[in-house]
Amino acid sequence: MNVVLIGAGNLATRLSSALHKAGVRIVQVYSRTSAHAAELATQLGCSYTDKPEEVTSAGDLYIYSLKDEALPLVLPRITPNRGLWVHTAGSMPMEIFKAFVPRYGVLYPLQTFSKERTVDFSEIPFFIEAATGEDTLLLERIAGLLSGKVQKLSSEKRKIVHLAAVFACNFTNHMYVLADKILKDNGLSFDLMLPLIGETAAKVKDMPPLDAQTGPAVRYDKNVMQRHLAMLGSEEQQEIYEVVSKNIHKEALRNE
Amino acid sequence: MNVVLIGAGNLATRLSSALHKAGVRIVQVYSRTSAHAAELATQLGCSYTDKPEEVTSAGDLYIYSLKDEALPLVLPRITPNRGLWVHTAGSMPMEIFKAFVPRYGVLYPLQTFSKERTVDFSEIPFFIEAATGEDTLLLERIAGLLSGKVQKLSSEKRKIVHLAAVFACNFTNHMYVLADKILKDNGLSFDLMLPLIGETAAKVKDMPPLDAQTGPAVRYDKNVMQRHLAMLGSEEQQEIYEVVSKNIHKEALRNE
Repeated sequence: MNVVLIGAGNLATRLSSALHKAGVRIVQVYSRTSAHAAELATQLGCSYTDKPEEVTSAGDLYIYSLKDEALPLVLPRITPNRGLWVHTAGSMPMEIFKAFVPRYGVLYPLQTFSKERTVDFSEIPFFIEAATGEDTLLLERIAGLLSGKVQKLSSEKRKIVHLAAVFACNFTNHMYVLADKILKDNGLSFDLMLPLIGETAAKVKDMPPLDAQTGPAVRYDKNVMQRHLAMLGSEEQQEIYEVVSKNIHKEALRNE
Repeated sequence: MNVVLIGAGNLATRLSSALHKAGVRIVQVYSRTSAHAAELATQLGCSYTDKPEEVTSAGDLYIYSLKDEALPLVLPRITPNRGLWVHTAGSMPMEIFKAFVPRYGVLYPLQTFSKERTVDFSEIPFFIEAATGEDTLLLERIAGLLSGKVQKLSSEKRKIVHLAAVFACNFTNHMYVLADKILKDNGLSFDLMLPLIGETAAKVKDMPPLDAQTGPAVRYDKNVMQRHLAMLGSEEQQEIYEVVSKNIHKEALRNE
């Protein structure tokens, strides 16, 4: 099977590198940024292009791993063929391919990827979807090369998973960013937080997050909260502090 | 050394249990809720009371581990003595003890505690402070029985650490709560998020949180964000989504 990679960002890099290691042949990388395409192609030992029109038609599987807003721009410029076209996006319906090719689907690994950081794919949930049962099986087999956690999921449900992931990962990381800022502004190291961050993440493996909730907002401790608000450096930080605290308290009351 | 424990909540329970295991003798537990005092005292094999006036004066170390608002109410009702009085609170200055006893300080373990969940104390940062150098050494020794990460820290800096911890732990956990809610409302399991949560926490051991940031808010992808807002079930959730996304984008622009 010949795989063509459309995109050379964080997800494209980590996914193609894992496929490559699993023995899958990547034949070409496309990125509109030539340097990115070249860099990834070098790692994978394949050719590359920065022109959609030059993407080979000889691929069996086309993995579109582009920013959501780039996908509708690039898609019409790739020559349609008999290969299976899939994207890796959480919120994008599978049907975006429908007007272009007969075989299409989705291969969505639920993880946060950075180019420089290797991740263990074996534990990553892969959500797959395809227009035909045959291609669903094919995607199951491909994802199964990397992970033990492959499951079919509709575009509707995948959107839900993606939204939840924005909270559990992207917003969580922003809380780390704010902690980092508060500490740095006062000459303290973010490393102090690491055991706390590790335990906060580990705790919800064993108990529902609502039961794991601690801190001044649970009992709406106005003294502490007022002092905290006064210590925060920007209006945005204060706004986040207030709205999150209010909601923590509300959920805690519901959970009593 | 005889330790008296004022409080029987999450932190008091986990800390006293760790001290007990390390061979420290706990002689009495006070809690205004008799059942809580009794339960913890049974685990520690010591006496208990629900009346501040009955707290023994024969202790060498008094660990006050009460809610911030309860501390000023209980403190004046405990008979002053020659023991070292410390509290375990992040935002409370050490000086609250000054009017009552000559020997006082702070023993602040930076971690999230739940009664039922054992934690490995060896990696927990302990921040200590005392009115005299001698008592600072004493607290260093006691905290050193549990953890390899003991450091002196002023009340001012401790407040900063506590504020950062509210973001890194309490607010982070609330993001898990929201993810859990979104998934449950749609018949999906929170367990799907666990590898993602684990990796999000692990990532910031190796790179600054700002560099680890991913997701639609980084590039302010309005299409995805509008769809997400429409999917959220409550105004509070939408408010959190908007204010956090805005700030993620702002920080990402600064980091470019």
